[in-house]
Amino acid sequence: MNRNDHDASDRGPFPDEPEDTRTAIMKATFEALCEHGYADLTIQRIGEKFPKSKSLLYHHYDGKDALLVDFLGYLLERFEDRELSRAGETDPETRLRSFVEHAVPEPGAERNTEFLKALVELRAQAAHDEAYREQFTRTQARFRTYLAGVVADGVEAGVFRDVDPQSVAAFLVTLVGGAMFDRATTDSTAEMAAVRAELDRYVERCLLAED
Amino acid sequence: MNRNDHDASDRGPFPDEPEDTRTAIMKATFEALCEHGYADLTIQRIGEKFPKSKSLLYHHYDGKDALLVDFLGYLLERFEDRELSRAGETDPETRLRSFVEHAVPEPGAERNTEFLKALVELRAQAAHDEAYREQFTRTQARFRTYLAGVVADGVEAGVFRDVDPQSVAAFLVTLVGGAMFDRATTDSTAEMAAVRAELDRYVERCLLAED
Repeated sequence: MNRNDHDASDRGPFPDEPEDTRTAIMKATFEALCEHGYADLTIQRIGEKFPKSKSLLYHHYDGKDALLVDFLGYLLERFEDRELSRAGETDPETRLRSFVEHAVPEPGAERNTEFLKALVELRAQAAHDEAYREQFTRTQARFRTYLAGVVADGVEAGVFRDVDPQSVAAFLVTLVGGAMFDRATTDSTAEMAAVRAELDRYVERCLLAED
Repeated sequence: MNRNDHDASDRGPFPDEPEDTRTAIMKATFEALCEHGYADLTIQRIGEKFPKSKSLLYHHYDGKDALLVDFLGYLLERFEDRELSRAGETDPETRLRSFVEHAVPEPGAERNTEFLKALVELRAQAAHDEAYREQFTRTQARFRTYLAGVVADGVEAGVFRDVDPQSVAAFLVTLVGGAMFDRATTDSTAEMAAVRAELDRYVERCLLAED
């Protein structure tokens, strides 16, 4: 399995030359995760991607799992910054479709599979590690809150049906997690097209207001 | 995390005293997985659950992963036996609901979380291990084929709308995987009730024929 075949343009939410130490650590973690995956990752290997003194890594973190849990929190903060800055800019239907399209891409639009695989490996740690579990419980909750807000906006604007925003959000966040799981752990490109087709039908029939 | 708190009545698809060696090995693997999870599992620990000569385990399998991939194949065979014996017995709507209810249980109906966690850990191995990946690709494909058959039966009988069985099956199998992922890796009991509510609305509005 080649962990280096991701598109070089997929650098995640990172500047080329991060100014502050935390961003530099997070960027190094992202790059090392994409290259080595979870099981083969070490603080040492993250250090190889880190332009400053390696001792900073050991100073800030007790071990690779503490660093990775912090990394997951960082990703969530970036998601929130991004969505907050976009809120109000675009209509609810576009925001909803953009959220799900990222997780269930059209065939051919598949990007950075290595990072996706690493994320699924990290999430599996939450089956037996409380710190990961708390972090993913928080992440999934924030995704639901975000999406419920989008749906509530759509209902209020009359572009969505009079649905329950919490239920729709929970349903879609779970579906999106399932799609990530499938993409990371099975050969499923054709199947994702079928999931996408039915997801579009669900949006039409169960969400969008009738003309 | 206590891995021993699953309901003792949840023995999986196993007789109390398996007659043949393979079933006995599979039962021991199931019990050891529930008790130790994936990361702490060893052939030695599976052997502790195995009433016959431990050397049989080493004779049949190269290592714990070879045994676990075979175990996943065994689970799939049992699923197929069970569904095949039930096919025709019950109507398509009941078969469809029973498939999804298993993965998105009503609050309080949650069972054997330790086995679910172990399954998610096994599936995460497929992110970097080709043998697991092939097995889960096969498992997910069979689930889709099974469910597409149920949907096609329902369409033919006129109890479902004129939907595309492949797309509906792919959508539901992905949702079910997402629900397992959530249940194993987050504290999400209340959220599963919301997922279930919207799933029921999807079945009503997008699947069942109008009266």
